[in-house]
Amino acid sequence: MAPQYKLTYFDVPGMAETCRYLFSYGGIEFEDVRIKQENWPQVKDKMPFGTVPTLEHNGKVVDQSLAIARYLAKKVKLVGDNEWENLEIDATVDTINDIRQKIIAVFLEKDDAKKKALIEAVKKDTFGFYLPRLEAEVQKNKGYLVLGRLTWADFYFTTLSRVFDVVSGEDVLASYPNLKGVREKVNALPSIKKWNEIRPKTSH
Amino acid sequence: MAPQYKLTYFDVPGMAETCRYLFSYGGIEFEDVRIKQENWPQVKDKMPFGTVPTLEHNGKVVDQSLAIARYLAKKVKLVGDNEWENLEIDATVDTINDIRQKIIAVFLEKDDAKKKALIEAVKKDTFGFYLPRLEAEVQKNKGYLVLGRLTWADFYFTTLSRVFDVVSGEDVLASYPNLKGVREKVNALPSIKKWNEIRPKTSH
Repeated sequence: MAPQYKLTYFDVPGMAETCRYLFSYGGIEFEDVRIKQENWPQVKDKMPFGTVPTLEHNGKVVDQSLAIARYLAKKVKLVGDNEWENLEIDATVDTINDIRQKIIAVFLEKDDAKKKALIEAVKKDTFGFYLPRLEAEVQKNKGYLVLGRLTWADFYFTTLSRVFDVVSGEDVLASYPNLKGVREKVNALPSIKKWNEIRPKTSH
Repeated sequence: MAPQYKLTYFDVPGMAETCRYLFSYGGIEFEDVRIKQENWPQVKDKMPFGTVPTLEHNGKVVDQSLAIARYLAKKVKLVGDNEWENLEIDATVDTINDIRQKIIAVFLEKDDAKKKALIEAVKKDTFGFYLPRLEAEVQKNKGYLVLGRLTWADFYFTTLSRVFDVVSGEDVLASYPNLKGVREKVNALPSIKKWNEIRPKTSH
């Protein structure tokens, strides 16, 4: 039988990788469609709001990576036991996403000198603000970001922290052993380990 | 009995207003704490990640406006009937939030000429891209943004679209009768009408 889910994104981890991790963790088959950069202009016009990833299921298509990840996290039981716990997870995910919002500018900047200045600002003001605070959360939460156990917030942090390294050209978590521990624990899950072995090799 | 919920934000609608609407809609009492701008530096240090709104309940504090709104929306039953429907709502909310992300720069820009240029770009590239697409969604969805009925996505759009008018100095929804209809329907709900009569008067 063909997979019931089709996930469409570019041929990079980026904003689709949390969803790919969640599919892998739950053992849910999915069609991993990867758009070639040269085909993007044509594909873009067909997307609901011109963005990917999109998820197709039962003939319906939705976009927005974090909305899709939240849906998949419920399926694979990486969510809270009640709605307050889900609120705590969602708040953590949105805080991690605030970091992402602040580093987008680096990718968009074409001028080398300006890009370098932006990277320095990200390291100081963004990583320097958020990471010590998240590190303290992991310390309070038994080695996880929230609720003292594995949730999809840990998956999102794990996949996004790769992007931190790409942006800065450094091992950003080197001075944050607890946050590094989150990434190591997630990537050591047998299902995720396997996914990282079989996934298409890309630049990061 | 004192209210069980304390919502803390600045003395403006902004990113707290969807939550205030949801409390009002559900008839849930809440303490509506409004920080004075001059006290913000001291208060900021006490917030989990230096941001508001925050919600306090049973001695716990969480931040992130959309996470809080999603939690309240479940309480007052403005969510989906199943998890796919919740995904559709969440995706719509995140699309509306993409508009907000793109207009933040206008508020941050201090230089008048640059601010004017940014406003023109927002009108053309942001409103001009998203609003016709959202207008078409409302047309397909019986006068609502998603699922063909009232959800918290309509509440978020209603409160945020005020900010569109503030940013642009125009009645941004004038050429989008369906979107304008969403706002009018939400604001005509007896509980919301009452809230808008009794809420503290602010600049917008």
